[in-house]
Amino acid sequence: MLIAVYPGSFDPVTNGHLDIIERASGIFKHLIIAVGKHAGKDPLFSTAERVEMIKEATKHLPNVEVDWFDGLLADYVREKGAKIIVRGLRAVSDFDYELQMALTLKKLAPTVETVFMMTNSKYIYLSSSIIKEIAGYGGCIKGLVPDNVEAALRRKFKRG
Amino acid sequence: MLIAVYPGSFDPVTNGHLDIIERASGIFKHLIIAVGKHAGKDPLFSTAERVEMIKEATKHLPNVEVDWFDGLLADYVREKGAKIIVRGLRAVSDFDYELQMALTLKKLAPTVETVFMMTNSKYIYLSSSIIKEIAGYGGCIKGLVPDNVEAALRRKFKRG
Amino acid sequence: MLIAVYPGSFDPVTNGHLDIIERASGIFKHLIIAVGKHAGKDPLFSTAERVEMIKEATKHLPNVEVDWFDGLLADYVREKGAKIIVRGLRAVSDFDYELQMALTLKKLAPTVETVFMMTNSKYIYLSSSIIKEIAGYGGCIKGLVPDNVEAALRRKFKRG
Amino acid sequence: MLIAVYPGSFDPVTNGHLDIIERASGIFKHLIIAVGKHAGKDPLFSTAERVEMIKEATKHLPNVEVDWFDGLLADYVREKGAKIIVRGLRAVSDFDYELQMALTLKKLAPTVETVFMMTNSKYIYLSSSIIKEIAGYGGCIKGLVPDNVEAALRRKFKRG
Amino acid sequence: MLIAVYPGSFDPVTNGHLDIIERASGIFKHLIIAVGKHAGKDPLFSTAERVEMIKEATKHLPNVEVDWFDGLLADYVREKGAKIIVRGLRAVSDFDYELQMALTLKKLAPTVETVFMMTNSKYIYLSSSIIKEIAGYGGCIKGLVPDNVEAALRRKFKRG
Amino acid sequence: MLIAVYPGSFDPVTNGHLDIIERASGIFKHLIIAVGKHAGKDPLFSTAERVEMIKEATKHLPNVEVDWFDGLLADYVREKGAKIIVRGLRAVSDFDYELQMALTLKKLAPTVETVFMMTNSKYIYLSSSIIKEIAGYGGCIKGLVPDNVEAALRRKFKRG
Repeated sequence: MLIAVYPGSFDPVTNGHLDIIERASGIFKHLIIAVGKHAGKDPLFSTAERVEMIKEATKHLPNVEVDWFDGLLADYVREKGAKIIVRGLRAVSDFDYELQMALTLKKLAPTVETVFMMTNSKYIYLSSSIIKEIAGYGGCIKGLVPDNVEAALRRKFKRG
Repeated sequence: MLIAVYPGSFDPVTNGHLDIIERASGIFKHLIIAVGKHAGKDPLFSTAERVEMIKEATKHLPNVEVDWFDGLLADYVREKGAKIIVRGLRAVSDFDYELQMALTLKKLAPTVETVFMMTNSKYIYLSSSIIKEIAGYGGCIKGLVPDNVEAALRRKFKRG
Repeated sequence: MLIAVYPGSFDPVTNGHLDIIERASGIFKHLIIAVGKHAGKDPLFSTAERVEMIKEATKHLPNVEVDWFDGLLADYVREKGAKIIVRGLRAVSDFDYELQMALTLKKLAPTVETVFMMTNSKYIYLSSSIIKEIAGYGGCIKGLVPDNVEAALRRKFKRG
Repeated sequence: MLIAVYPGSFDPVTNGHLDIIERASGIFKHLIIAVGKHAGKDPLFSTAERVEMIKEATKHLPNVEVDWFDGLLADYVREKGAKIIVRGLRAVSDFDYELQMALTLKKLAPTVETVFMMTNSKYIYLSSSIIKEIAGYGGCIKGLVPDNVEAALRRKFKRG
Repeated sequence: MLIAVYPGSFDPVTNGHLDIIERASGIFKHLIIAVGKHAGKDPLFSTAERVEMIKEATKHLPNVEVDWFDGLLADYVREKGAKIIVRGLRAVSDFDYELQMALTLKKLAPTVETVFMMTNSKYIYLSSSIIKEIAGYGGCIKGLVPDNVEAALRRKFKRG
Repeated sequence: MLIAVYPGSFDPVTNGHLDIIERASGIFKHLIIAVGKHAGKDPLFSTAERVEMIKEATKHLPNVEVDWFDGLLADYVREKGAKIIVRGLRAVSDFDYELQMALTLKKLAPTVETVFMMTNSKYIYLSSSIIKEIAGYGGCIKGLVPDNVEAALRRKFKRG
């Protein structure tokens, strides 16, 4: 059974991520969304919160599992018996970093393949950082993140 | 009356910025230079200092106003009744960020247009960070920043 | 009165071009769409056909004029008394060419400014070449070009 | 059964292509290498020759089929009942074109997904054009193309 | 003695090329400007004309030799006993092509090194094609090419 | 005597750096590896450790000297009587930064030339940060850094 891992910091998950998740779950038998614990220095949401938000937003996708990892992605992927890593590509500025990651991973885990999917043009400008910046200033993020994430962001910045 | 806003952190304003300001002030009826209060984590100059330096450097341009803002640029622009945002483009590394900003702004303020102007090739390598790095080590920045900024940088690093 | 020129080969005009035209006509008093006669070696549509198709597609925009030019853009722009050139930016691959054009124009016509607008993300992948390739193979281009252009392409390739 | 299509002009197939083919054939159940008949204006090898060379070079891969197509890739993919298109990414200059292709395909065939694989860094500089240029001047291409392609190029340029 | 080769089509040589030549001649003991006979399909100037124009424009540089070559650059460089290839980098769009060339050359001639120099920002937008386009339409190219090239272009387009 | 400086943070030196050092030492009479004291905010290795590791890794290269500097590179280069700065280029994301640095240096030290060498494709994905990340998680970095650096990283992270 072909298992794929979609790693990221997902702080928080956006509709751009969700678009990749939905499309990748149509390609691979089993898709693990792997929230990197240490990805990003100062996350807005805890690892547990990030996992929970993705679980809620992907509950309509039966072959999607949400998990988190610490340490090297190469080790995590091997441990899960996965053969595929999925990454979204939005723009050229992603490209060099992703090439570096894919080639490094090839060195650390030669049997694992990284496949890339282009982000839907509707979401091409979306990033978790921009979402946090807009939400932090009270801007409207409807349509940019799943509903539960929108609510979580509102709560987070009210308390903050 | 067509009002345009040229936002940035301007920490400090360079001759590259000034080139964009002069050219944009020839296109638009009224041009507001908007110093972002929170742009950049650890500014060298205070918001007030940055505003003052630009005022001094643009006093020959009657249709230029210097202001500062806090919060979302989309909100500030609407509040000022502006329809245009002006941004300079220097190099490819600016492009992706600027595309992301322009598309996000289109979502938050659909009636506002972002227009880009290419930086004069003479200033294509200039950035506020490079100016601060050179000045911080006592290097010569004559011709790279307005005279008043050169003096301010000298004072700042003498005191530092 | 601020006159702007939007030059291009428009072989044929797409909905991406139209989006730029509509937005630019909201910024500038008068906008001239200038079809380059020699732009592109082997055009599918004649200069007259290209002008006609844009006229039809922009007839709801009272401050838009459609014209064609031969020779240097710098000369044409001066002759029309225009101060602004408008260009759309889609992707990084456009950037270098557009930078080169803008800097060259600055040398040939120092008082003319080139301003860039980012293409709507919906049309970010659109180009006249791709439209012709799809239409040439009988693919569906509805929503990618104005209706009159869709009809013209159908006729063109039926005859071809 | 998940069928993937790897389209290209393959004029001729290189070891960079072969690396993508081998890795993609390990991911997907059935992989169709689809030689585009009209891809490239003035091919060195005929469609039949290109198909034959790939067949020879991939005969150790039981789940790989070699075919050719004419017309729109979107139509070919649908006709074959494939859900996936595989593309190799070498460098940033590939990126914009591939993004454009992937987004166009999404419009023409919404249920088909394009996935990208990064070329092995060993082959990152390889292209069919460079191979033809080197071989055309009698340069050594051992290790850059499969052995049968090397022989075919030698024959082709001896006759030329 | 360290010999360097600066290859190109130079159709015609521009002040951007000349800037690289002057700077490279200050670094290397002997610099050979190598005009590629087949570089560019349909050159405006013959190989002999291109060689002659560079000779004229570089006669103040005693360690510069002007030559032409046919065939593979790797073979030419070896034949001349050169160890270095010099290339100018203007913009990101040059980068991928130059990386490909440098890595290919490394494969064909492992002992030869390619070194790159950044074009002076004054000439960053200059290319031989743009010069020909401007001159072809009678535009002013003073300051963009050496004087003798300006004269040659005027003659060429008067006759044309 | 032509002296060249290869500046960097080298925290730590990788086999990609070493490849540039070996090739540059074959071009220039004397090559100074200059470890920037303040390059990088929070270095893993002290300046002294970084200098020591490079000395060990380059002891087979008689014309290579290892040194460190504080302050402006332009000042350091002048003080050493060097005329050349060597920089490695890996990917497009390096390009803009390097262009900016080279043009700034040209302004601060007009007689100094920056030359770039493309990183061997084998090491195109390597960076000191990635090495530290992999080593920090206990991953295998054999073949990516010199042996003494591998040992130093193992000790560093054991103590950490």
